[in-house]
Amino acid sequence: MSRVDQDELISALLAGKHRALARAITKIENRSPGYRELVSELHRHTGTASVVGITGSPGAGKSTLVDKLAKRYRDRGETVGVIAVDPSSPYTGGAVLGDRIRMASNVGDMDVFFRSMSARGQLGGLSTATADAVKALDAFGKDRILIETVGAGQSEVDIVKTADTVVVLVQPGSGDDVQMLKAGILEISDVFVVNKADMSGAAKTVADLEEMIHMRNDPTHGLQTGHHGFEIPDHLNRADPADEGDRWEPPVVETVATAGDGLADLLTALSSHREHLETTGGLDRNARIRAAEEIRQHLRSDAATLLEAEIDRRGGIDALAERVAARETDPYTIADELLEPLRETIKPRSDRQE
Amino acid sequence: MSRVDQDELISALLAGKHRALARAITKIENRSPGYRELVSELHRHTGTASVVGITGSPGAGKSTLVDKLAKRYRDRGETVGVIAVDPSSPYTGGAVLGDRIRMASNVGDMDVFFRSMSARGQLGGLSTATADAVKALDAFGKDRILIETVGAGQSEVDIVKTADTVVVLVQPGSGDDVQMLKAGILEISDVFVVNKADMSGAAKTVADLEEMIHMRNDPTHGLQTGHHGFEIPDHLNRADPADEGDRWEPPVVETVATAGDGLADLLTALSSHREHLETTGGLDRNARIRAAEEIRQHLRSDAATLLEAEIDRRGGIDALAERVAARETDPYTIADELLEPLRETIKPRSDRQE
Repeated sequence: MSRVDQDELISALLAGKHRALARAITKIENRSPGYRELVSELHRHTGTASVVGITGSPGAGKSTLVDKLAKRYRDRGETVGVIAVDPSSPYTGGAVLGDRIRMASNVGDMDVFFRSMSARGQLGGLSTATADAVKALDAFGKDRILIETVGAGQSEVDIVKTADTVVVLVQPGSGDDVQMLKAGILEISDVFVVNKADMSGAAKTVADLEEMIHMRNDPTHGLQTGHHGFEIPDHLNRADPADEGDRWEPPVVETVATAGDGLADLLTALSSHREHLETTGGLDRNARIRAAEEIRQHLRSDAATLLEAEIDRRGGIDALAERVAARETDPYTIADELLEPLRETIKPRSDRQE
Repeated sequence: MSRVDQDELISALLAGKHRALARAITKIENRSPGYRELVSELHRHTGTASVVGITGSPGAGKSTLVDKLAKRYRDRGETVGVIAVDPSSPYTGGAVLGDRIRMASNVGDMDVFFRSMSARGQLGGLSTATADAVKALDAFGKDRILIETVGAGQSEVDIVKTADTVVVLVQPGSGDDVQMLKAGILEISDVFVVNKADMSGAAKTVADLEEMIHMRNDPTHGLQTGHHGFEIPDHLNRADPADEGDRWEPPVVETVATAGDGLADLLTALSSHREHLETTGGLDRNARIRAAEEIRQHLRSDAATLLEAEIDRRGGIDALAERVAARETDPYTIADELLEPLRETIKPRSDRQE
């Protein structure tokens, strides 16, 4: 795509053309040439959307809940963008078919823009692609952006952290709660939803969650050893321990998404959390944390690409590995040799007075 | 530690002094100054030990099995080193106490060298530290090295891949099999052990595992969709599809580790796999794959350290994130700017004729 075409794409997107939005997200998803410049430009136009991430095990009812939420926002006259991410299915295109069926309730309403993304072999890069796609939706002018992702592994945690508000869906009696907590989801969850609240065991699941939240927020229990004896990694803990008074206690909302029950309570919880972020400076703090993570992520990824080029220049990884296996050299020595140029470049300048 | 002290440490280690071995591993675990040069030097003396990795859920009986295996090797007159790694407990020193009790059966026998390692906050670096500690044991001259690790997450997979032979322990009726397979353990497992084989449900667990192994090895089922419908990531698949005839079919061994039942079968399975690796060139292939992974891991880690220095030189990550949050710039632009020196260094040289 030429520079002129790219400028046209950006103008059309900013002017509210859904076709341009779709093309931009495709470019972002495929990492097509020019995607970086595209996202760099879009970034300047972001910052108005409210971004909610929704995660939970397969079958917990995420799709239905997202559909219903989108509908409620539309009824209020707000525009909605949905990004559904499935990190566990790098090969299948199955999600797309399912999505068409799901989105039937909003058919014809172009102001619910739906897009599914899958890993396509670029493990680890999916959270970056998601964050970039969210920027496209934000720059486009969508009022509400919903990020939906399956499960509770590290990649899902990374994906869902793109949102200002994280909703975790739990199915009664599934044992999901314990699994998710182990994955560090408790620490990034702002709102818990016990969906299918008409199932038996729902009351117990609600009570269990509330107890865990209470344990977390009670300083006498400490942060490091939770209810289930698991450890909470510091980097997952977005709460600022300095601001005891500003601490957010995640509410537990009961819904039956298929029937629409509890949707009003969920909307209230979401707007309360948004308000909490606004009054405590949490929105800005989250934006800075995200920016720092994006910078580091891009640096890691770009450095890896450059280092692969350097490996190739030195005969390729196989030749290097062969020399290590033959004990002619060793991995640390090779790393030192390959990074010497970078070390040279950075070191003299850091010694210089500025 | 001065250069002379380091040389003395290496000499003492190579001369078979256990105190020097313990000091070397402490240095490796703590990443103390000089650890890289130490490992570089030790690497030259490696390549004689047989390395077995043992993984499985908590309670599956790994500790007991490792103790009994060590005892059997000792009875044959072989020397043994054990590295027990617990990636999930970065804070507690609990493992050490447990280990003392466990190793009671081998007390006084210095030729079973036991060492536990925990994450200590250096997540991701633990597999590197483990691989380096294994090199110390190998260079020391241990005949058998056992790496024991809990669970079945990505870090455990990385740790256990340090071994030539991977043993996966499954407890009957625990559902462990399904969980581990999801984590990609099937693909790196060379020997399955159904421990506590006197429990009810053992026969079913054995049958389930054998069916899964059969499915994997049957080309008509394909590699991509296994018995449980999960996908097998390519990077976890160590089998070489070109060598159909050389393919190893993981045996399923039943043991009752506490009573020593089935230990002989396990020893047979382990030596069969070793022989298989030797006759098919698998040992060399694994060594090259490991070398390549170590090179890439060191490059990533070292580049990250250098980039952090560059971030600091530019005012620190907080200042950069602040500028992104204020939309003065964006993460991609910052990454481009920071990596410009590296790009400059690599590019002109790759254009040069060599």
